[in-house]
Amino acid sequence: MIESLIDAKTIAVVGASPKGSSFGGAVVRNLKKHFSGTVIPVNPNYEEIDGLQSYRSLEAIGLPVDCVGIAVPASQVPAVLADAAKANIKFAILFSSGFADLGTDDGRKSQAALVDLARSLGIRILGPNCTGFVNVHTGAACHILPSVVDLPMNKGSIAVIGQSGALGYVILQAMHRGVGFSKVISTGNSSDIDLADVIDYLVRDDSTKSIALVFESVPDGARLISALGRAFVAGKPVVVYKIGTSESGKKAALSHSGMLAGNAAAYNAAFARTGAIQVFNFESLLETAHFFSIYGYIKPKSQGVGVISGSGGSVVMAADKADELGVALPQPNAETVTKLSSLLPSFAAIANPADMTAESVKDDSMYAECLKAFAGDDQFASLILLMPSAHGHNAIPRANLIDRAAREMAAPMSLVWINEWHEGVGSRVYDASPNMAVFRSITRCMTAHKLWFDYFDRKQARASQVDEVSAQARRASPNLLLRGRGTTLSERESKEFVATYGVPITRDICVSTVDEAVSAAMAIGFPVVVKVESAAIAHKTEIGGVVLNVLDADQVRSACALIDQACEKHCPDLESYMYSVQEMVPAGIEMIVGGKLDPQVGPMVVYGFGGVFVEVLKDVAVSLAPASRHEIERNLKALKLFPLLEGVRGKKSCDVGAYVDLIVNVSHAIAENQDAIAEIDVNPVILLEDRCVAVDSLVALK
Amino acid sequence: MIESLIDAKTIAVVGASPKGSSFGGAVVRNLKKHFSGTVIPVNPNYEEIDGLQSYRSLEAIGLPVDCVGIAVPASQVPAVLADAAKANIKFAILFSSGFADLGTDDGRKSQAALVDLARSLGIRILGPNCTGFVNVHTGAACHILPSVVDLPMNKGSIAVIGQSGALGYVILQAMHRGVGFSKVISTGNSSDIDLADVIDYLVRDDSTKSIALVFESVPDGARLISALGRAFVAGKPVVVYKIGTSESGKKAALSHSGMLAGNAAAYNAAFARTGAIQVFNFESLLETAHFFSIYGYIKPKSQGVGVISGSGGSVVMAADKADELGVALPQPNAETVTKLSSLLPSFAAIANPADMTAESVKDDSMYAECLKAFAGDDQFASLILLMPSAHGHNAIPRANLIDRAAREMAAPMSLVWINEWHEGVGSRVYDASPNMAVFRSITRCMTAHKLWFDYFDRKQARASQVDEVSAQARRASPNLLLRGRGTTLSERESKEFVATYGVPITRDICVSTVDEAVSAAMAIGFPVVVKVESAAIAHKTEIGGVVLNVLDADQVRSACALIDQACEKHCPDLESYMYSVQEMVPAGIEMIVGGKLDPQVGPMVVYGFGGVFVEVLKDVAVSLAPASRHEIERNLKALKLFPLLEGVRGKKSCDVGAYVDLIVNVSHAIAENQDAIAEIDVNPVILLEDRCVAVDSLVALK
Repeated sequence: MIESLIDAKTIAVVGASPKGSSFGGAVVRNLKKHFSGTVIPVNPNYEEIDGLQSYRSLEAIGLPVDCVGIAVPASQVPAVLADAAKANIKFAILFSSGFADLGTDDGRKSQAALVDLARSLGIRILGPNCTGFVNVHTGAACHILPSVVDLPMNKGSIAVIGQSGALGYVILQAMHRGVGFSKVISTGNSSDIDLADVIDYLVRDDSTKSIALVFESVPDGARLISALGRAFVAGKPVVVYKIGTSESGKKAALSHSGMLAGNAAAYNAAFARTGAIQVFNFESLLETAHFFSIYGYIKPKSQGVGVISGSGGSVVMAADKADELGVALPQPNAETVTKLSSLLPSFAAIANPADMTAESVKDDSMYAECLKAFAGDDQFASLILLMPSAHGHNAIPRANLIDRAAREMAAPMSLVWINEWHEGVGSRVYDASPNMAVFRSITRCMTAHKLWFDYFDRKQARASQVDEVSAQARRASPNLLLRGRGTTLSERESKEFVATYGVPITRDICVSTVDEAVSAAMAIGFPVVVKVESAAIAHKTEIGGVVLNVLDADQVRSACALIDQACEKHCPDLESYMYSVQEMVPAGIEMIVGGKLDPQVGPMVVYGFGGVFVEVLKDVAVSLAPASRHEIERNLKALKLFPLLEGVRGKKSCDVGAYVDLIVNVSHAIAENQDAIAEIDVNPVILLEDRCVAVDSLVALK
Repeated sequence: MIESLIDAKTIAVVGASPKGSSFGGAVVRNLKKHFSGTVIPVNPNYEEIDGLQSYRSLEAIGLPVDCVGIAVPASQVPAVLADAAKANIKFAILFSSGFADLGTDDGRKSQAALVDLARSLGIRILGPNCTGFVNVHTGAACHILPSVVDLPMNKGSIAVIGQSGALGYVILQAMHRGVGFSKVISTGNSSDIDLADVIDYLVRDDSTKSIALVFESVPDGARLISALGRAFVAGKPVVVYKIGTSESGKKAALSHSGMLAGNAAAYNAAFARTGAIQVFNFESLLETAHFFSIYGYIKPKSQGVGVISGSGGSVVMAADKADELGVALPQPNAETVTKLSSLLPSFAAIANPADMTAESVKDDSMYAECLKAFAGDDQFASLILLMPSAHGHNAIPRANLIDRAAREMAAPMSLVWINEWHEGVGSRVYDASPNMAVFRSITRCMTAHKLWFDYFDRKQARASQVDEVSAQARRASPNLLLRGRGTTLSERESKEFVATYGVPITRDICVSTVDEAVSAAMAIGFPVVVKVESAAIAHKTEIGGVVLNVLDADQVRSACALIDQACEKHCPDLESYMYSVQEMVPAGIEMIVGGKLDPQVGPMVVYGFGGVFVEVLKDVAVSLAPASRHEIERNLKALKLFPLLEGVRGKKSCDVGAYVDLIVNVSHAIAENQDAIAEIDVNPVILLEDRCVAVDSLVALK
C-alpha cells in the first residue's frame, strides 16, 4: 500500500542543496513551490536551504516524516537508509543511479543488497534511478527535473506512469496548455515498488480516472500483467504504449535500462487478455488516456459515431478514416433530420458526417444546437466535432459555448483541433475542459473510438470468459512427461500426450515389421500414410521418412522399403526404428497450433494458418494460455485469411468450432504442464467441413 | 501562364465593402494589410472603403489592373466580366458560389456559359467558389477569410494548393508559429485554371521549393497527373494528400464538391508513376512538404539515418519506428566513435541511435558537437534530433546553437519536437528555421525519411523507365477488335488478341466433333483440358464446361459427353458450340493480370496473386498502362505473398521475369487499344520455375 508515499504530507530530502542544478536542490525547489504539505531539507553542510531550515540527519528532524527523497551518490545510500529507519520513515525515493542500471554484475549486486537492507529496515523503495513522482492534487512535486518548478499544477484525473521519468515528464508538460493530471510516477529500476504496485495504487485512487503507461521493460512481466487484469476488473482504463518492440528498439532498450524488453507478440497477447488499451505511438498516449478518463465510464449506446464540422474537406477526411478503421457512421434518424433542417442553411449536408458549411463560423449557436441534435439521436454513441481553424474575434466565446453544450448533452463528445496552429485562440478552453476529449489528429480520434468499442466488447465478454477458463477441469499431468527420453518426445508419445487433452489426432499404429504394417493399414483402411518412427528423427519429411497416399498392401511394402533406404542413407548410425501407419486425412485447410513459454509473460498458445503461409504471411494469432473460446474466436476472425475458413468461391465453410476447441485444449496442455514442457507443436492441423484433425505433433520437454 | 495573376501588382476587388464580414470586405482588408502592390475597391455605393478610393466600375479605374477579385452574387458575375474586359483585365478570381457546386444541371450550365463568356473576352478564371490565393512574398492576400488579416506574412518556400480553400488556410495558420510559405492557392470549382495550371506555375516559380497538395476531386484527372509528372521531371517535389478515398469519404466528397472523387487505387498508381510523394493523413502534409523543401534537393549519401537524443526512452521509440518503416540505422564508423567518446559521458550509448543522456540538458554545446560528428559520418544520409522537453532557462540559446549547427553541418537534419507542450520554449526557433525540417511525431519523421529514399530511387530509375516504355514498338490494333460480336470476345478470340501482344498462352485447338477433339488432343500431347467454346458462355467452369487432366483418347470422348450434358442442362437454347482442346499446364502459382480503363486516370494494369487470394487477400498491385519493368518489379516485391515467388521451404523460385514481361505486354495491349477495349482479363496465369503461361483470357469491348 503505497498511499503514504504518494499522498505523503511530510517529505524530507536528503542531499538537499541550494544549487538548483543538483538533483536534491531541484527536488526541494519543486516541493517548496507546489507542495501543500511540509518539505524538510537534510544536509549537514547548511543551516538553511531555500529559506527552509536544513537538518543534519533524518533522525535529527524529530517529527513524523512520511517519506524521504534521497539524492546522494550510490555508495552513501545504505547509510541514509539506516538513518531513515531510526527516524521511523517507511518510504524512500532513490533518485541516485549507479545500481542495476549500470548493466554490470556489481551494479545488480549492490542493488540486491540495498533491497535486502531496506526490507530488513521495513522501508519500501521507489527507484533507484528514478525521477520521482508528482502528486498534482497535493502539489507533492517530488521530482528531479528543474523545470517542474514552472509547471502549473492543473488538477485532473489522468495518471502517467512508467519506468523512465523523462517520457512521463514530457507528457506532464501538457499542463502548460491546460490539461489536468492526478499523478505522475516513475519507478526507475523498479527494485522494490514496481509498475504493478503503482497500478494497484491507482486503481484504489479515486482522483485517477485513467492511467497512461509507457514502458520498455519490467523485471517481472507476470506481475505487471496481473495488475493490468485487476485494473480492468475494477473498471479503471489503462492505456499502454509498450516500446522496445522491434529488434533495433530492443537493442536500444537494453542499453538504456539494462533490462530485456521482452517479446512484443507475447506482450500484445497479454494486453489483449487483460483489457489494457494499446496504442502504438507516443502522440496517442495522452490523448487516448484523456479520452478514456471520460469515455471509459460511458457504455456506448450504439456502435456508431456522429461527425460534425464547418469544413467540407475535414468531413471527407473523417469519413475516410472512419472507413479505414472500421468505425460506423450511421445516418441520423428522421427526428434529427427535421431538427437539423431548421438549423442549417439549405446548402448544408444534412447527413452524417454533417458539413455545417462556413456559415457555422458566422453563427456560433448553430454549432451547439447541431451538436445537441446529434447527441439526442440514439444512432450516435459519441460525437466528433472537427474544428478546422481558429478565428480570432469569436473563437473563445464559441469555445465556451461548445464546452457548455458538451457538458449538457446526451452523448460524450470529442473535439479534433485539426489546426496546424497548435495553440490557436480557443484551443486552451478545449484542452482544459473536463467535458470533452481533445485530439490533434482525426486518425487518432477515430482510433480511440475504435478502442472504446473494443474495450466495452471485452468488458461484456469478460464474465463468461473467466468462468469458461476456470471451469475447465485440470487434468493430471501424464506420466509421459516423466519418462521423456532426452528433450523431445517421439511423435507417437507427443500425439498420445496431446490426445489426453482432447486433441483429435490421426489414427496411428506403430509396428516393427513390414507384414505388421500391412495388417495395420488394412485395420485403419486405405489410403494410409507410412512414416518412420524414432525419437532420434525430429524432421521425418526432410529425410524422406514419410510416404503419403499409400493405396494398397503392395504399396505399403514399397513404402517400407523407401523408408529403409532413407534411414540407411541419412541415419546410418540408427540401431532400430519402427513404422508408423496412419490414416490419410483428406485435403483441407492446413492450420497450426503451438504452445510455448515466454520468459516474461508465461505460457502462450499460437494458432493460425499453416503451410507456406506460416513463413510468408505470418498469419497467426497469440493468446495467453489457457485461452477462452471467445478470445480465440475474436483473434481468428482478425486473421487475414479467415474468410477462407468461412468458404469462398462456393466452397463450404470449415468446422471452425472444432478448431477452436483444439486450440483451447492445447492452451490447457501448455499451461498445466509449464513446469515440464517447453513447447508443444501440433502441426499440421487439417481443417475440414465437419471436423478437424491433427496429423502430427511434437512435444519438447524442458 | 498565370504569373500575372499570382504575382499581380495591382488588384481590383468588385463587391468591396466596408463590412468585414462580407467576402468583398474581407478581401480588401486582407490586401490592404499585407499587399505591397495596389488594391482598388470597386463598389458604386461608396466613395471610399477602408480609406481607399472606391470606383463605380472597373472601366472607371483608368489604370492598368492585373487581376480582379469578384465577390458579387452569381447572377451578376457575367456583367462584371464584361466590365473587366473593357478595362483590359486578363484574370478574374471568382469567390462567388452558386455554379457547378450546386450539384444541379442548372449550376453546371451557368458555369459552362461563364467559361465560354470569359474565353470570348480573353479572361482567365480562378474559381468560381474559391477562397482565392495568398502570395506571401508580395503580400497579395487575395482571400475571403477574415482572419487572414491577422496572419504574419512569413516568407518561405512551401506552396499549399487545393480545390478547397479551408484546408489550405488551416495549414497557412502555421505562420503563427513561424513557418514560412510562398503561395497558397485555392482553385474552387476549377472551371478554367485548375490544379494542373497551378502546379505548372509553381514549377516555374523560383520562390517555391516544395508543393503541398490536398484535394478530393478534379474535373480532369489526366491533366493533373501529367502536371505532376512535369513537376517530378523538373525536380520540384509535390507532396499529395488525396482525400475521399473510402466509400464514406467519396460520398461526403460528392456532397461537398459535386464532383466524383475517383478510384483510390487508380490515383495511387498515378502518384507512384509521376513521382508525387503521397501522405495519408492531414497532419503529415505540411511537415512532409517542409521536409522536402530541404531534402528534395539533397541526394542521400547513404541509405541510413542517424538518431540523437538526450532521452533514452525517445531513442527506443525512434528505433522501433525505424524498423517498422524500413529505415536503416547503421552504426557510426570508428572515427565518429572516437569523436563521440571524447564528447559524451562514459555512461552514454555511443551507438546509433545515440542516447546522449540527461547530461546533454546541462551542456548545450554537447548537442551541437555530437550532431556535427554524426553529420560528418558517411554512414548517415540524414540526422534526426529528438527534442523531448522544453527547459525554460536555456531552451532558446540551445535552439539557436542547434540551428547554427544544422546550417553548418555536412548532412541535412530533422528535429522531432516530441513534446506534448506543442509550443514550448524554443519551438519557435526550430519551426521558423530554414535549416531543418521539424516534426511533432517520430512516426511522421521516419515516414518522411522513407519517402525521401523512395523519391531519389524513383529519380534514379526514371530515365531508363521512360526510355523503356517509349521503346516498345506500337503494334497495330488487330482486326479482331472490329469483328467483336456483342460486348465480349470469345475465349479463343481473346487469347488470339493477347497473343498478338506477346502473351504466352496455352496451345488451343478448336474443333466441332468428338473425333476432331481426339486428334487435337493427340497433336497437343496428353494430358489436356477439354472445354466448351462459345461466345455465349462467359463462365465455363460454373456450368461444368471445363474438364481437366484428360489422359487419353477415351477420356477425351467422355469429356466431350460431359460437356454436351452440361450445355443441354444449363444452356438449352444454345444452337451450337465447339470443343476447345488445350494443353494441361502443370501445377504452379496462380497469378492474374488485367487491363482496365479508369474514367479519371485512364488505362491501368492490375496484377498479382490469383485463385482464392484475389478475394481474400486482395494481394494485387496497380500501375498506369503502359507500365515499365522497373515499376512492375518494384510493386511485385511489395506484395505480401511475393516471397512465394522466390521459393520457400526448399521450393525453387519462379520465373518472375517472364511474368513481368507478360504484365508489360498486357499494359501495352490496354493502353494502345483504349478506344476499343474496356477490359482485358488474363486469368489464371500459371507461374512456373522456367516460364509462365496464361490459361485463359477474356476481352470486353467498349
